[in-house]
Amino acid sequence: MHHPENDEHYKGLAVNKGIPQPPSVNPRLKRKKRVRVQPSGYYVEGILKGNVTVLSQAITLVESNSPAHYQIAQEIIEKCLPYSDKSLRLGITGVPGVGKSTFIEAMGLHLTQQGEKLAVLAIDPSSERSKGSILGDKTRMEKLSQEDNAYIRPSPSAGTLGGVARKTRETIILCEAAGFQNIFIETVGVGQSETAVHSMVDFFLLLMLAGAGDELQGIKRGIMEMADAITINKADGNNIHKAKLARIGYQNALHLFPPTPSGWEPKVVTCSAYENTGIPEIWNMIKEYRELAKENGYFTHRRQDQAKYWMYESINEQLKGDFYHHPDIKNVLEATEADVLNEKTSSFVAAKQLLDTYFDALKK
Amino acid sequence: MHHPENDEHYKGLAVNKGIPQPPSVNPRLKRKKRVRVQPSGYYVEGILKGNVTVLSQAITLVESNSPAHYQIAQEIIEKCLPYSDKSLRLGITGVPGVGKSTFIEAMGLHLTQQGEKLAVLAIDPSSERSKGSILGDKTRMEKLSQEDNAYIRPSPSAGTLGGVARKTRETIILCEAAGFQNIFIETVGVGQSETAVHSMVDFFLLLMLAGAGDELQGIKRGIMEMADAITINKADGNNIHKAKLARIGYQNALHLFPPTPSGWEPKVVTCSAYENTGIPEIWNMIKEYRELAKENGYFTHRRQDQAKYWMYESINEQLKGDFYHHPDIKNVLEATEADVLNEKTSSFVAAKQLLDTYFDALKK
Repeated sequence: MHHPENDEHYKGLAVNKGIPQPPSVNPRLKRKKRVRVQPSGYYVEGILKGNVTVLSQAITLVESNSPAHYQIAQEIIEKCLPYSDKSLRLGITGVPGVGKSTFIEAMGLHLTQQGEKLAVLAIDPSSERSKGSILGDKTRMEKLSQEDNAYIRPSPSAGTLGGVARKTRETIILCEAAGFQNIFIETVGVGQSETAVHSMVDFFLLLMLAGAGDELQGIKRGIMEMADAITINKADGNNIHKAKLARIGYQNALHLFPPTPSGWEPKVVTCSAYENTGIPEIWNMIKEYRELAKENGYFTHRRQDQAKYWMYESINEQLKGDFYHHPDIKNVLEATEADVLNEKTSSFVAAKQLLDTYFDALKK
Repeated sequence: MHHPENDEHYKGLAVNKGIPQPPSVNPRLKRKKRVRVQPSGYYVEGILKGNVTVLSQAITLVESNSPAHYQIAQEIIEKCLPYSDKSLRLGITGVPGVGKSTFIEAMGLHLTQQGEKLAVLAIDPSSERSKGSILGDKTRMEKLSQEDNAYIRPSPSAGTLGGVARKTRETIILCEAAGFQNIFIETVGVGQSETAVHSMVDFFLLLMLAGAGDELQGIKRGIMEMADAITINKADGNNIHKAKLARIGYQNALHLFPPTPSGWEPKVVTCSAYENTGIPEIWNMIKEYRELAKENGYFTHRRQDQAKYWMYESINEQLKGDFYHHPDIKNVLEATEADVLNEKTSSFVAAKQLLDTYFDALKK
């Protein structure tokens, strides 16, 4: 049966024939971009054929907050899951100003010149960066965005880190199924999102600048130990010598770190994304890592660990979400926290009181 | 009314007068140490007078898993909470063999010689170390354990990290109220317990050895960045030169780390706990830190952060505990995880299925 809502020319309810209601009355007209939902098979077929328009539509469903879209998105993802065997997921982090876009463009062009396909994604929770700045990146990655073999996707709009991370991880799967077997995931090295990115990539690259230590101001403690490689960018002009010194300094520092579970010794390298030097060497290093990790089984092990991690992380986040959003908890949480800070009650007694309140309410 | 069970000379039910039942029949006789519970005021009074026998009894209640003991323990803790203003909580970590006991004994004796009182505790979750080895430590800290101003408490018996951490944190409060204003908390630097210790101390000290990097094998990645100071122990005899080199190496590495929120620059020092050199200098460094952190407000800020951390950590742990121990979840968790690992289902769909199962069951 044909239903007028499914017709894309349908303009909404009209008070009198031919005179549409104003947008404030008819919500249909308010939505500028309405996602026309097809059966999941449509998307899966398009994605597996490498159709980027369909891929983009499917990613829009993944990013949507509507339950109906969620349902279809999950069906698509399930069917795309088995197509990630040959992919390489590369995490790239560094503070603003380190030259991430230039680096990604240089590295991306190096890949497309070899006939490789790649997708560039970003984790960009609302709190950490002004909305839409990846669109700026896209503009800055002008050459790369014109390549047929490159797919640059602006980051999902504002949301919690957990939500954004889920959407990014699901987008990775869709991109891989569409044949983009190299995935770059960009993040700003100042917040919680690096842990999230680290937990969804095969190789984690930290971009840094040479300098007297000031460049570290923005990097969060602990990120350096996550890195599979540190790249000192902007090793050009007067900077070359400083970059080499920094390389030696970081290399010595990394030697003092405990060994990584992969058996890989994190490397420190220099490059100039701007002058396009050092880029092939970095790509070879990443391939070298992949070879080592595939051979000793760590590659698969890390991916399986990550799949488990996200299952448990997702459960734990949603358990917390349900608790902290419960009205009975919201009512008392602030006062209880104040009692803890004023040493009126201990952390553990406060926790128990809140938990008792919550479970009593759930059972009602 | 006098009840025979409350009489400590009461030996349990007897089958025939004068002939006690065997322990297998009469559980009373099996328990070697029965906790005689007094009203909470008894413990609070004793603790505030500095009575270590009463302190030990109260800690036993804290460590008990009986709900009745829990209730009284919490009453005692609430009343002891306001007595921690002048205390200093020092976390000490390092792999087995680094000389933690010798270091703690040397540092402890240095404190008692100045009339300071201190308590030595340990975080020792069952999985990480063979049960009871802190008793070995107590024996090894022979001189310190004979000091009136030192209180060495064996770690609570086996349990989850969360449980052990709660008990340790509560024990700290009781010790401080009893006048032990310096608290040393020892942990082995190989597991999750360092994060727990780091979240309950004012100063976190990492003990290491000089060497060619092998000594790092056991230290977990990320611990070095938590340290407020690294101490190279066993800087004696032929080791002195190596220790000095290691000191310089670590100092350079720490310079590359981002600054700490306290404004304190983590230090690297050497000592020989065995030859008792370098100990006063380390104590002075810790006092210097305390002065800085008290002056700039970070000391209080960190303690308040920790109080909040444990409230939320405790809530989150118990939410997870309730979920993962729910019979409906236990029944399907393993199979669901296998589906995720085999790419039959995505991490997020699996999580949603489990959460739906759980909340449906709770509402029944």
